[in-house]
Amino acid sequence: MTVLAIVGATGAVGSTMIDIIDARETVPWSEIRLVASARSAGKVLRVRGEDVTVRLLEPEVFDGVDIALFDVPDAVSAEWAPVAAARGAVAVDNSGAFRMDSEVPLVVPEVNADEAANRPKGIIANPNCTTLSMMAAMGALHREFGLTALVVASYQAASGAGQPGIDRLQAELSAVSGQDVGRRAGDVAEAISAAGLPAESPFPAPLALNVVPWAGSLKDDGWSSEELKVRNESRKILGIPDLKVSATCVRVPVITTHALAVHATFAGEVSVDAAHKVLGAQPTIVLRDDPAAGQWPTPADAVGGDPTVVGRVRQALDFPNTLELFVCGDNLRKGAALNTYEIAETVAATL
Amino acid sequence: MTVLAIVGATGAVGSTMIDIIDARETVPWSEIRLVASARSAGKVLRVRGEDVTVRLLEPEVFDGVDIALFDVPDAVSAEWAPVAAARGAVAVDNSGAFRMDSEVPLVVPEVNADEAANRPKGIIANPNCTTLSMMAAMGALHREFGLTALVVASYQAASGAGQPGIDRLQAELSAVSGQDVGRRAGDVAEAISAAGLPAESPFPAPLALNVVPWAGSLKDDGWSSEELKVRNESRKILGIPDLKVSATCVRVPVITTHALAVHATFAGEVSVDAAHKVLGAQPTIVLRDDPAAGQWPTPADAVGGDPTVVGRVRQALDFPNTLELFVCGDNLRKGAALNTYEIAETVAATL
Repeated sequence: MTVLAIVGATGAVGSTMIDIIDARETVPWSEIRLVASARSAGKVLRVRGEDVTVRLLEPEVFDGVDIALFDVPDAVSAEWAPVAAARGAVAVDNSGAFRMDSEVPLVVPEVNADEAANRPKGIIANPNCTTLSMMAAMGALHREFGLTALVVASYQAASGAGQPGIDRLQAELSAVSGQDVGRRAGDVAEAISAAGLPAESPFPAPLALNVVPWAGSLKDDGWSSEELKVRNESRKILGIPDLKVSATCVRVPVITTHALAVHATFAGEVSVDAAHKVLGAQPTIVLRDDPAAGQWPTPADAVGGDPTVVGRVRQALDFPNTLELFVCGDNLRKGAALNTYEIAETVAATL
Repeated sequence: MTVLAIVGATGAVGSTMIDIIDARETVPWSEIRLVASARSAGKVLRVRGEDVTVRLLEPEVFDGVDIALFDVPDAVSAEWAPVAAARGAVAVDNSGAFRMDSEVPLVVPEVNADEAANRPKGIIANPNCTTLSMMAAMGALHREFGLTALVVASYQAASGAGQPGIDRLQAELSAVSGQDVGRRAGDVAEAISAAGLPAESPFPAPLALNVVPWAGSLKDDGWSSEELKVRNESRKILGIPDLKVSATCVRVPVITTHALAVHATFAGEVSVDAAHKVLGAQPTIVLRDDPAAGQWPTPADAVGGDPTVVGRVRQALDFPNTLELFVCGDNLRKGAALNTYEIAETVAATL
């Protein structure tokens, strides 16, 4: 009799979590409890064919819960994941609140499932979606070739900012659709404003017909929080404390699925053939790498699916032991809901 | 009495060339001759307040021409630039036909204007738009710090595929506007098809709500022609035959202006302050680098302007002597028409 709670069940990631649970042939849960803030408590959602009323986030809601999944803002997780843990649940948290806590494992099941067992605080963290999008591929290549350095440029989807991000991009696209804009500075912003969209946006610049090299908050020396997460979380998940990482994180006008251009350097020799063999053997990776046949990964191919799609594997011409790759992963699924749920399945198997 | 010819005057780049000429306070030309294929010959375009009838591309059209600018497909340039040169014109060519010819200089005036004088074939080549977007910045930083390696990921606009590219992206955006697509694999393609757009497209995959990691044609070992151009042309323009370069070229749903995430390594120490000083002193660069104030380069800011916009300058945390930058340049202007025209001005000053 294992009880699962989903905190933040009504958000973009929470909805995807329910989709994933609905699609599973079997689940180990005797009860699935949906939890949200006062704004959404009382709503009724359908889960595996049954109506479930969303309950209010309060301490008692965790009584009897074995595993509590959190997809809520950092501050909410920081307060409530320990509450769930204190009431006996294993909290699996998708916020940034605990990822770099040395007493909280940061888990991608196909890379470091073992670490889920070592959770002195009763909390397990789920990585940031941008980092996660490449971890299945990087973990597999690291096991074989020994990763030493990553240079990454991201192409991040609007849904990384949740449902408000999706809504905003769709509204902006409607505002520019049929307009001949994108030809001179500021004309996209003017069209968006003329269509009556509020100046306030989940994005710090127009996203329709644009790319925005900013995600997260400002950290030291001009780095964004998102870029530092890619560095710090990759090191922790892969267990390479001195992994060299430089990331540039860029938002693009895509609804869902993050893409990453990755320049990966290894300790020893690598080849495209050997990399194909390693990547092709992973159950959670789809290799789509035949440019002659028009086969490479795009967000439009990867979205809505569980696997990471990998392609454009090339041996760097001028950098020793280095591969270039292009990786696409659905940021709401593997990048968030799916990986969180897979951690829960990993833990449930041990209870 | 200097005569300028513009071959390909009716295309996306040709139109931008005429805009640039119209905006110049003075021009050194006694005559501006517009030239195009039979499909467009006979059209009348307005240039600096005068009606100019587009003439047919034939050998005699180059008689009396001092400088002939070509923006036409590679095969047309390969045939006709030598014809223009044989009739006494200096041909400035924006196709890929001559860029890597050792007897043809590849010129970015603020980087290597001197080389324009050494043109044994009477032909000067204009670089590829993706390479060009970062050359002003890379040239300036190289002069100061000695560039040794570049890892580049591009965010390339639809107009890199000319007016058909712009038309296609606008039509695709209209097709998906107001539709809740981009949620599952293939739904964007379905919406585009349902709207009646032809399967044939300038792009090898849907570009609306998507990014496509492919531009150009397939070369050896999985590289695209566009990616190899970035490598080979950067080496030639900067005069660094052994410059290490890896590029991943990706098309994004932006009308005009290419963006590049650049990881640049130098021979000696670099700092953000020193790079800011160097970049800020360039007349053709606008530095937009204050994330705390929401200042960084985006295509929507750079489009329609002459300068390259540079920002997000960061010192790589784990790679010695390395800077990260984000660069935006209007691919129809500095990336094509403007640089071609600046080469023509450079040559005209010596005639």
